[in-house]
Amino acid sequence: MKIKYDLLKKDNATNARHGMLHTNYGSFETPIFMPVGTQATVKTLSPEELKEINSAVILSNTYHLWLRPGADVIDKAGGLHKFMNYDGPILTDSGGFQVFSLAKNKKKDIVEEGVHFKSHLDGRPLLLTPELSIQIQNKLDSDIAMSFDECPPFPVTYEYMKQSVERTLRWAKRGLAVHSNPNQSLFGIVQGGEFEDLRKWSAIETTKLNFDGYSIGGTSVGEDKPTMYKMIDYAIKYLPEDKPRYLMGVGDPIDILEGVERGIDMFDCVHPTRLARHAHAFTRTGKINLRNLKFKEDFTPIDPTCDCYACKHYTKAYIRHLMVADETFGSRLLSIHNLRFLIRLVEEIREAIDQDKFLEYKQEFINKYQKKDN
Amino acid sequence: MKIKYDLLKKDNATNARHGMLHTNYGSFETPIFMPVGTQATVKTLSPEELKEINSAVILSNTYHLWLRPGADVIDKAGGLHKFMNYDGPILTDSGGFQVFSLAKNKKKDIVEEGVHFKSHLDGRPLLLTPELSIQIQNKLDSDIAMSFDECPPFPVTYEYMKQSVERTLRWAKRGLAVHSNPNQSLFGIVQGGEFEDLRKWSAIETTKLNFDGYSIGGTSVGEDKPTMYKMIDYAIKYLPEDKPRYLMGVGDPIDILEGVERGIDMFDCVHPTRLARHAHAFTRTGKINLRNLKFKEDFTPIDPTCDCYACKHYTKAYIRHLMVADETFGSRLLSIHNLRFLIRLVEEIREAIDQDKFLEYKQEFINKYQKKDN
Repeated sequence: MKIKYDLLKKDNATNARHGMLHTNYGSFETPIFMPVGTQATVKTLSPEELKEINSAVILSNTYHLWLRPGADVIDKAGGLHKFMNYDGPILTDSGGFQVFSLAKNKKKDIVEEGVHFKSHLDGRPLLLTPELSIQIQNKLDSDIAMSFDECPPFPVTYEYMKQSVERTLRWAKRGLAVHSNPNQSLFGIVQGGEFEDLRKWSAIETTKLNFDGYSIGGTSVGEDKPTMYKMIDYAIKYLPEDKPRYLMGVGDPIDILEGVERGIDMFDCVHPTRLARHAHAFTRTGKINLRNLKFKEDFTPIDPTCDCYACKHYTKAYIRHLMVADETFGSRLLSIHNLRFLIRLVEEIREAIDQDKFLEYKQEFINKYQKKDN
Repeated sequence: MKIKYDLLKKDNATNARHGMLHTNYGSFETPIFMPVGTQATVKTLSPEELKEINSAVILSNTYHLWLRPGADVIDKAGGLHKFMNYDGPILTDSGGFQVFSLAKNKKKDIVEEGVHFKSHLDGRPLLLTPELSIQIQNKLDSDIAMSFDECPPFPVTYEYMKQSVERTLRWAKRGLAVHSNPNQSLFGIVQGGEFEDLRKWSAIETTKLNFDGYSIGGTSVGEDKPTMYKMIDYAIKYLPEDKPRYLMGVGDPIDILEGVERGIDMFDCVHPTRLARHAHAFTRTGKINLRNLKFKEDFTPIDPTCDCYACKHYTKAYIRHLMVADETFGSRLLSIHNLRFLIRLVEEIREAIDQDKFLEYKQEFINKYQKKDN
């Protein structure tokens, strides 16, 4: 079965929308934030811990799983859900972003066939094509697969971007043509950088292909925030209302609010778990660094209003000790907290949309968050 | 309240015994294996996971906690149980072993007052004395504290060992004199190396001081197995029947069986969690290395008869992938499995003692385990 999107409620003042996405592994409400499980595991966490923080859908990386353990191993295991013991919905990316950002020395050769690059693990030469990306994702058996696109850095010339979005569209068609997993939905990706007409062209042409959902790509690659928000504005008005819209690689709380306001339903980012491993925690008044000496004897939780396992049972002093002593249980507690922070944020966003109070909620959140009391 | 030991059943053929130890944080049966939570956390695991594997009591290290975060921080937190959110019994060691094994460059100066050494973290000069060790442990508020002893390497001369056990006894008396936590029990430590008369002397003199339990120290410091077993034999016959006996730093399954046969009640070792972080798992037929290529497509659990979380939900192929990809969730699954393996071992040992079948059980276990089918 393919996914199905139900629009439950539109905000009366913005494009924000509260919806429900039905998948073979359960339904979840949108807007949603998706924790990233790059290598078939959300770093430091168990599937049970993901459920406990009310995580609904996770993302896993095609590039990493293709290299290690290999798509065939996961296929033989019965697919990614079974391999990693996760019975919730999974989205896989196309591998495109990783090829462009992780390839050894970042040297790559983009040709019509695909991208030649060298493995970041051992330097061996590899070729990832639109067909291969889809075939790998078919084997991984994720619920949602992504088209293989070119993800150019920021900025590039108009001329380059024009050729790039045209190629990305040709790649999208080639991927669609080989997609063969009836239980897997496929999303198209809108590119076009900061160029309004290219975003429009990419959105119109991509939606003609009738994907199961659409992603706005090429954000968080170095552009400033106002430019990122414009990229969304330029594209989103051409996306159909009855399909989910996904902003790739975005996990900053304020960016999530700005994305939702513009009509985005899905977000993902390694940010919360990576911050955790570097001892940073989200709080309602901004991020704090748990290694800070001032927390040495702070026997209060990270956030007394937070309902996560870390905040219910552990103090800043203890978590600081764990991080200073390099104990992975510290990263685990902070990962739980940071993910729960973003998932609570989208829960509150959905409630605000239902009450036609999204802008009020957004402003209140930002006012507090930007206090940066840390 | 001090601990209280009840002897429930003695094996009819050996010195093996099944008992019950009552503490302020609950009662547990012996023989027991204690997971080690060096820095106020059993590496990679939550307190809930420890309960799930039926872990009854853990060990934490005075030396590490003294250096980081400091005994005063833990005191202010309300003691170690509260600091680390662990409501089961905790035993702390004296710091002696770490001073001798971890001190920077292992240079140390043993004088009557205590041991001068340099921190393994930053090289600053420190002095640990019998009084300070007990005072730190009083503040940590563990259920069981250990006397500060000298832990000589193996081998040393008879002359050296004689002076050492005499000093260890003087240190035991000094520690007892300052021990002031009414809720904390204190164990004495029998030393004497491989010298029968020194072990006897140390056991007789130490037990005269009427500690709440006794440990046999100076094992696992380089001696061969038959020598370690002799060290136990030489000492244990002089230890009172109504107090628990603890063999420090021993966690090899066969050593546990040999220790139990000689009348030991408590064991601890970093072995199972350290092995886990190096991708090794205990099985009934010996240890296996999960990084081995032969497990790449092995979709069976580490041990199909094991009841741990890792064996119930994950395959060797997945755990191999996690370890090869350096994902800490792999170490966590293997830590759960290895600890559960040893805890199941002591559970089965207790059952065998109850049925007067200890030797039969031991032989059967060893026959299988030494197959080393790995």
